[in-house]
Formats: sequence, C-alpha cells, structure tokens
Amino acid sequence: MEKKLSELIENDNFELREKMKNVFKDPLYTPRYNLALPEERELAYRRLKNFCEQDLFSVFDFEGDPRKIFAAHEVAGLVDGSMATKMTVQFNLFGGTLLKFGNRERFQSVLEKINNFEEVGCFGLTELGYGNNAVEMETTAIWDESTDEFIIDSPSVLSQKYWITNGYCHAHWCIVFAQLIIKGESYGVHGFLVEVRDKNLNLKQGVTIHDMGMKIGVNGVDNAKISFNQVRIPRAHLLDAFSQVDEKGLFSSEIKGKRARFLKMADQLLSGRICIASMTLNATKMGMLTSYRYSKSRKGVGPQGKSDAPIISYQFQQNTFVPLLAETLALCFGHNHVKNLYAENKKNVVKECCVIKAMVTWHSENSVSVLRERSGGQGYLACNRFGEGIGGAHAGITAEGDNGVLMQKVAKELLDGYKVSELAKNKLKDLLPGKLQKFLSGGELGLLKLREESLKAELALRMQRVKSKGREAIYNKWVNESADLVQDLALAYGQRFVLERFEWATKQCSLPVLIKCKELYAKLKIKESSSWFLSEGILSGRDYRKLCARINQLNKEIAPDIELVINSFNIPEFLVHAPMAKDWVAFNSYDHQGEVYNRPEKKSDELRSSSISH
Amino acid sequence: MEKKLSELIENDNFELREKMKNVFKDPLYTPRYNLALPEERELAYRRLKNFCEQDLFSVFDFEGDPRKIFAAHEVAGLVDGSMATKMTVQFNLFGGTLLKFGNRERFQSVLEKINNFEEVGCFGLTELGYGNNAVEMETTAIWDESTDEFIIDSPSVLSQKYWITNGYCHAHWCIVFAQLIIKGESYGVHGFLVEVRDKNLNLKQGVTIHDMGMKIGVNGVDNAKISFNQVRIPRAHLLDAFSQVDEKGLFSSEIKGKRARFLKMADQLLSGRICIASMTLNATKMGMLTSYRYSKSRKGVGPQGKSDAPIISYQFQQNTFVPLLAETLALCFGHNHVKNLYAENKKNVVKECCVIKAMVTWHSENSVSVLRERSGGQGYLACNRFGEGIGGAHAGITAEGDNGVLMQKVAKELLDGYKVSELAKNKLKDLLPGKLQKFLSGGELGLLKLREESLKAELALRMQRVKSKGREAIYNKWVNESADLVQDLALAYGQRFVLERFEWATKQCSLPVLIKCKELYAKLKIKESSSWFLSEGILSGRDYRKLCARINQLNKEIAPDIELVINSFNIPEFLVHAPMAKDWVAFNSYDHQGEVYNRPEKKSDELRSSSISH
Repeated sequence: MEKKLSELIENDNFELREKMKNVFKDPLYTPRYNLALPEERELAYRRLKNFCEQDLFSVFDFEGDPRKIFAAHEVAGLVDGSMATKMTVQFNLFGGTLLKFGNRERFQSVLEKINNFEEVGCFGLTELGYGNNAVEMETTAIWDESTDEFIIDSPSVLSQKYWITNGYCHAHWCIVFAQLIIKGESYGVHGFLVEVRDKNLNLKQGVTIHDMGMKIGVNGVDNAKISFNQVRIPRAHLLDAFSQVDEKGLFSSEIKGKRARFLKMADQLLSGRICIASMTLNATKMGMLTSYRYSKSRKGVGPQGKSDAPIISYQFQQNTFVPLLAETLALCFGHNHVKNLYAENKKNVVKECCVIKAMVTWHSENSVSVLRERSGGQGYLACNRFGEGIGGAHAGITAEGDNGVLMQKVAKELLDGYKVSELAKNKLKDLLPGKLQKFLSGGELGLLKLREESLKAELALRMQRVKSKGREAIYNKWVNESADLVQDLALAYGQRFVLERFEWATKQCSLPVLIKCKELYAKLKIKESSSWFLSEGILSGRDYRKLCARINQLNKEIAPDIELVINSFNIPEFLVHAPMAKDWVAFNSYDHQGEVYNRPEKKSDELRSSSISH
Repeated sequence: MEKKLSELIENDNFELREKMKNVFKDPLYTPRYNLALPEERELAYRRLKNFCEQDLFSVFDFEGDPRKIFAAHEVAGLVDGSMATKMTVQFNLFGGTLLKFGNRERFQSVLEKINNFEEVGCFGLTELGYGNNAVEMETTAIWDESTDEFIIDSPSVLSQKYWITNGYCHAHWCIVFAQLIIKGESYGVHGFLVEVRDKNLNLKQGVTIHDMGMKIGVNGVDNAKISFNQVRIPRAHLLDAFSQVDEKGLFSSEIKGKRARFLKMADQLLSGRICIASMTLNATKMGMLTSYRYSKSRKGVGPQGKSDAPIISYQFQQNTFVPLLAETLALCFGHNHVKNLYAENKKNVVKECCVIKAMVTWHSENSVSVLRERSGGQGYLACNRFGEGIGGAHAGITAEGDNGVLMQKVAKELLDGYKVSELAKNKLKDLLPGKLQKFLSGGELGLLKLREESLKAELALRMQRVKSKGREAIYNKWVNESADLVQDLALAYGQRFVLERFEWATKQCSLPVLIKCKELYAKLKIKESSSWFLSEGILSGRDYRKLCARINQLNKEIAPDIELVINSFNIPEFLVHAPMAKDWVAFNSYDHQGEVYNRPEKKSDELRSSSISH
C-alpha cells in the first residue's frame, strides 16, 4: 500500500521520474553557497544544460504528455529553484508559446534547440509599469510597409520588459509582447520572436539589457530588464497561429477583440502556473523531510529534565508539523488533478490552474517558514535549505500572476454563468432551500461545499444589484467593497476542490494514515473558517470543541506514521543534502564552513568525538 | 498632536535618537548587496565601530538608563540587522553580563573598551546539543588546585559553543558558560571570561574557532562554533558577583540551587529579548514605510481599465496593510512599556520581556512577508530590503530563546501563585461568578481579559489535577496534552497587555487615527479568537458579522491617514534607501544593477525618459 501511496503522490511517468532524479546524482548538483552572482548564474545554467542534455523531456511534450514537463519541474524543485525557474521559462513560457503560436516550419530548428538548451529563450511580457495590467503595455511593433518588417520599440522607462528570466546572461531569443500597429491602427497585444543575441551571445543592435541584481531568492536566475530601440524583425516573426498580417499589411484574426487576443497569446501562463506549483510543492516536500528528520534526532528536555526527548515527541512540534504534512498531501492530490485535467483537455482549467498555484505557493511560504522556526538555529543555516524554500515560495507567490489577483480571477470564473435568480433571500437556509441537510450529511466536504455555495450566492447577489449601474459601480462593488468576500470565495472553492481530490485518493489507497490525514485536512479547513460556521449557526459551541479535540487527537495518531508519508514522497537519499537531515553531529565534528560541497575526504581537523551517543 | 504621537512611539531619549540617526547619514551605511561573506562581515564591523566611536551610548547605561541602549538597537534596526546583531552581543550579552557579574575593578579596562568596540566580546552560552536546555550543557570549568586556575574544556562535538556572534572574525573575549567543577564536585553552570584572541586577533592556544558559513539572513554576522581544549584562565575570571571560589577551592554562593544560579547568570537574556524586539520592530517600520510609499505610487487597473489607480486605493491592499499598521503601533506601545518597566525595575519583567519579543518577531516575520507579497516583483529585489526584514525576523524568532519555548515560560509565570481553588466549576460563567458583566462592559479589553482569565483557569485546573501525580504526569499534562492551551494563554495575556498599553497611549494623544487604530487592533484580536468567543456563547453570530463589518470600515477610514502614522515613525529621509520607496521610475532609467550604492552621478546610459507622467 505504501507503493500505491507513492504512485498517487507522483501521479504519472514513474520511470521517467526515476531517470530524472538519477541525473542529479552528479556532484554538479550538490548545493553550493557563498557564490558571487555570476558564478551562481553560471552554475544554474550548467545544471539546467546538463539536465536538458539527457533527453528526458522536450518542448514537444506539450503536444504529447505535458505531464512529462511538469514532472521535470517537480524533480527540479527538489534540487535547485534557480535551475527550475530558468527551465520553466525556456520550456513553458518561451518554448510552449513558440510551439503553440509560431510558424512551425519556420521555427522548427529553434524549437529543437530549445530541448538541449543550445538556444536559450526568454519571455518578454511584463513591463515595469504594467505588472498586473499587461494588456495596457506600451511596447510597440509597428509594421513598416517599405521593408515588410516589424519595428519593435520601447517608448518609455515604464515600458521596459522587466524581470526577464534568462535575459541578462543566456538568452538568444525573446518572445516580445507588443502592441501591433499597422498604418497607425492598433490591433492589440501580440507576440513576436526577436533575436536579442547572436550565437556568440553578442547583443543585437538596438537591444539594451540591464542586470536586475540581487533578489531575496533564486539568485541563480539572471533576471533582466530589456528595452528595444527600433529593432527590426521579419514579418514572419509575428507568432501568427491566430492572427496574421499579410504582405500588404492586412490584419486578420480568428479571435475577436483586443483583450481576447491578448489572453490567447498569454495562454502559456496557464501551464506556467502548474509548473510553478510543481517546483514549489516539491521544495515544500524537501523542507518537510528535512524538518522531520531533525525533529526525530534532535533531543530536548524530557520528563526528568535531561535532554533525551526527541522534539517530534512534543505535542507542540506535532501540532505544528502534522497539519502541514496533511495539507501538503492534500495539495499534492489537488495539483495532480489539475495536471491531469490540463493534459486531457487543455481548456476550461483556468480557475483550477490559478487556485492551485496560489494555494501551493502560499502553503509553501507558510510551511517552510514555520518548519524553519521549529528547527531553531539549524534551520537558519543556508546549507539546510529552508532559506531557498522561503525565497522560492515568495517568487512563486507573485510570478505568473500575483496570487491575490489570481484569486479574483477564480472568483470571477465561479460567478460566470452562475444563476443568481435562484437565490431569493439573504438567509442561508432559505438561500439553499432543502439543501442544508444534504450538505450536512456529506460530512466535512458537505460543510465546505455549503460555505462555498453560500459565499458564491452572496457575492453573486451583490454583483447582481449593481449590474445595471454601469462600469464604475461594478468596479467599486468588486474592488472597493467585496475584497474579503472575493478572496474567501476563491479559497473556499479551492479547499473544497482539494478535499474532493483527497477523498478520491483515499478511495485508491486505504492506508490508515492517509485516511487520517484526509480527515485532518478536512477538519483543519473547517476550523480555519469556524467563525463563519459558528456565526451562521451551522456549528454549535460543542461541535467546535469536539472539532478541536479531534484535530489534536489526529495529530497524535498520525505522528508515528509521519515517516511513512515522508517516505512516500520518493525523495532518494542522494538528493538529501541538508546536514540537519543527516548525521548533524558528524557534520559538526570538523570545519564545514557552512558548506556540504567539497566536504573534506579526510577530516584533518576533526574534533574529539561526541561523548553523547546519537 | 502629530509630534505627541511621535514621542509616544519613540518613548524616550529623543535628542539622543536624532544624534544616532545622523550617524547613519555617512555613505558607509548605504546598503550594499552581492558582497562576499568576508566583505559583508567587515562592513558590519566597520559600521558598528563607527557607530560606537560617536560616544552616544555605553555599556554603563545599563546602570543609568538602559533605554539608551535599547534606543541604539531601534535606530540600528532601521539600518543594518547584521550591525545591530553584532552590537547586541557586544553591549548586552557580553558587556551587560561582564558589567553585572564580573569583578568591576579587574575588568574596568575591558568594560571601557567595549564602548568604542576596541575590544570585542562574544557570549558562549548555547552549545550545539543544548539549544533549549542550556542548564544541561557539557562544557566544563575545572578548578586546578595546583595553579589556582580554571581549565575550560569542551568534551564533545555536542558541547561546542554554537552560533557565537562576533566569534569567527572579531572577538577578543568570550564569556564562556560552563559547569563549574571543584574537586570532582559540580556546582552548576557559571560564566567565565576567556581570552580567545590576543590584541592582534591571533587565536589563543587551545581555542578552536570554525566558521558557520552562510545563513538565511544577517550574513554580516560572523557566527562561529567555538571549542576549548584545556584552556587555562585565572580564578578571578570566574564572574563572581553571586558565586565565589576562594583560593582553597571553597565554593560559596548567595543563590541556592544549580538551576537558580544558571538562570541568574543568564539574566542578560532578558534585556537581550528587549534588544531583539527593538531592532526587529524598527525593521518592520521600515518595511511598512517602503510598502506604503510604493502602494501610493504604483498604479493598477482603475474603473476604466487603465493603469491609473494607486494600488493603496484597493480594498484588498488596505485590508492587508492597515491591520499590520495598527498591530505595529500596538506592539510599539507594548514594547515601550516593557522598556520602561525594565529601566525602572529590572525585576519581575520576565513574562513581559518574553511575550513582547515573541509577539514582535512573529509580527515582523508575518508583516514583512505579507508586505513583500503585496509589493509584487519590486518587493523581491534585494535593494528594497524586504529580504533583510524576513531574514532578520527569522533570526529574532529563535534567538535569545525560541518564541514557542518563551511562550511556555510566560504561561508558567502566569500560573505561578495563581489560586486555582477559587474556581469551582468548568463552565465559564460559573468559573468567573459575577464577573462576566464587568468584563463585557469593558468593551474589547474586557473580552480579551475574559478570554485570558478563562484560559488561565482552564490550564490551572488541568495542572492542579495532576499536581500530586509526580513529575512525569505533570510533564505529560503540560508538554503532551496542553500545548495549544499553553500557547493560547501566553498569547492572550500578551494581546491584553498590549491593548492596555494602546489604550493608555490614546489617553496621551487623542489623534482620531490613533483612536481608530486602537479600536482596530482590539477588534482584530477579538476576531482572531472569534471561534472561541462564538463557541462559548459570548459573541453571537450577529455580533461577529458586525465585528467584521466594523473592521472593514475602520480599514477604509484609516487608509487616508496611513501617511500620518508612517511619518510619526520619525524615519529620516536619508535612511530610506529602497528605490521603490522613492522615484522608482528614475531608478529604472539607468543600469542600476540592482544596487543603490555607487549610483552613477552621470547617468551615461540613461534610457529615454518615461512617456508616462509619474
């Protein structure tokens, strides 16, 4: 059954994953610290290039099984967030967009060279001034009738392409998003393939690339700001799968409206969110493994005042750790479902991709921070990798769409086509006539559904009331009066969706610890919103106290099986580098200088061995 | 009234603070990034040395007004967490301990040289194996009858002094905590002054010092692991204010019991917690200023779809920012009170010092993380300093006592001498006969008091029931069955205490925004525990909905006055370096490489100026 659990967690491409993991046995992937920026970037580049050269995944997998690419992100997430970030831009944002929207014959050789990282691409969407409103961007692509070319130009400081991964050191190509202008008329944002450096990495004329410098994480990523001064590209470098410009400057598109065209062109952000969740989720798993192993080997005060109690035996430690473990499992099953939906369908997964990226990255930031704290000083050493986890999660929270903004998108999607007219009254039980009993008999899932439906009805009613009052009234109601409700609804949907997937998982594998983790996740989510349930009269004070007691009991019952769950993450020992997850007494018996790289073969300055058995 | 608010926030030594801030006008204090570890450590050293040389504060202030030292930490917290950390060890842990427990005449010259950082000290308390149970440490100080010396020795890997700030590069002296052993008998942990390096920074014989390497923050701090191989020191280097050893090896102490002697010797940890709260709280203020300024200048989608709405106008941004601001103010007033208590009394402030350190550092970690997120990509650039804030807060959370452990200490203190016998029954209203109405009429403060008293009674009753069942039963009840309750009680006490100080502050200054922030803080804390209030029948569903609505309303009402509050932090413009808090469009008009240091005088590669007015 443990094997079944592992398979449920890894979801797909089991053999491929093993091959991918084995690539990282190479000492090239041993974590290194205290590198200067240029070294750190070069290291991330070399790591990714070597990974790509193994020929285990390809940009063309987007047309076969995109889960192979997601798997590569998951495995990379265990190893190096910088490498994974460079990879996601190369394969998903750059490669995926070129594959989907570029002229296949013309760009076949570029596409093929993406796979072994021989030609490197970047993705020029975000501008300094237009982080969350890219459709208003300023960069222009003006068709020049006299030469049949597009002229790419950045008219202002705010129009610089900003945060461009792979941009400062390694990119040959950039997919530049720009307002397409023909004979003075604007047709909205389109994508253009622009050569920014030649094969020898010399900058092309008119292209300015600046270093964005140090960040609070993933410093192996060479983020750049890029601007264009009248850079000319052939007309065929418009990515023209949906919109074309002919040799006479005639524009045609099968998509109506500028906003719709923009959203279509930015489609790869959707799978990008899955990629980010993939790498972040696995970085979280690594943090859980590290923290758990240390909690087992680290001794604190026991009943007799001696330092003989493993800290994982403390209820305080268990009550911190076990809920995070249950949530990690839950998000894993939710995330797998989103990957499967994407692979099967590729459509109508907007709200699923948005909500899972937000939930996974927020969970990662929270859990790695808390695990760092519960690991005390050891967690503060760079070599134990919690810092990478925190920095990586922060990157994920605002990359490929700010989580808070994505949650608004989710709420909008949920209201789309939702019939408000069914709901006659404000009171919950009347709002959902005859359904309350059905919800309640469904256990925790029923409760979460009830909350989701209730919030949805409330928001829908609010928006309904201002529907006829014009654009500004609608904007105000949404942006200035319903911020909490919008976020709450999106999260309630996400939690219900994730719990459904967890229930599905327990039907595939009946390991008692899995069933308990499912119950724990469900009850934690009820507890998280217990003020709502109590204030609506759905839970009583007694129900609430029972809920809290049961959560404590579950934490206790699951604690002895933590190791089984951690093992099911299938993280091979050669990927575990954090000294605190290993024999940290031995690591401290010589002058490690905070590093595991270049660990001395002969420990010449070894300290006297510990008098305490460990 | 704005001036009055500033004074309430800064609390004491106003002129001194201005002088301190002015020291940091020097370009030496301009933030720098992408430095190698040795450079970063040297920079922190030079910054601190220059600060010390201004003669604005002194270790002897512990005997006059210790708030001068806390003020130095607060001001330093705006500038450089590494410098502040080195300072707190030099002045508080090392200096303060030597001042309090060392022979004054003998060590007068060392004490004087602490002040200008001419002689540098470190504090050897924590051992690798004994983070939270230092009383069980292994390092020994054995009295050698033949030479009348103590021999300091580290018998094992686990006994290495660990995380020793100032240790790897700069310390001449170390106060080593060790088990005092005379003629085979152990007298418990005492402090000894040990010279670890000579004046030219050459290591003394028998002392081994290793670098701890990269950390997830404050990398200007030269943390070391230190071990001693039979290092001899004069008998007079025992810090002997409370315990003495005479020339015949006769031990005497005015303090009974090993644990009590250890706690006495580690007394400086108490003011150390104030110091950590001081620097962390001000780093939080800097984060709030930075985030607010950006939220005002950054434009997002407005009602017409254009990027023309400052993001601070969004309810989502306000509902995130304003509560953090109110909590920052609240903790500020609570923290000031702890400083005042300490300065007046120096005794019976254990639970106040513990709870304020925990609350401030947790708040800082949370708020800087959230503000980073709400600042999007800009917040991710190192030069905008949120990374420093997050790394610094994490250091604070587990330094000078792990927050979770300190909260247990607080709960223990609260139960100390508390009469459980008064409480006859389990039911809340019976537990506190006749008092409920009194509590309720006290508004939010009454509610917080009610909760604190109720949790205290519950925990006291639990412990009462196992009192006679022996050590193991007591341990189990506390450690394995009451973890949540212990933490909840300590936090409930802290929140009530902080709210009382906020109420006091509103009596000193009647600025409407201050009064609103106080109400907001109070209501946020009720909301945080609203499940408890609802489940106990103290709040109704209607009360709860009113509470939530009022919080939203307060956020809206306070929003226009955020700037007034931020200004009252009294952060001079020359201390604001984050580009996003300034003209970030101008900063992005040239090749900044992510740095503000060495900003070019002539912007030779300036980009074309923005077409968008800003």
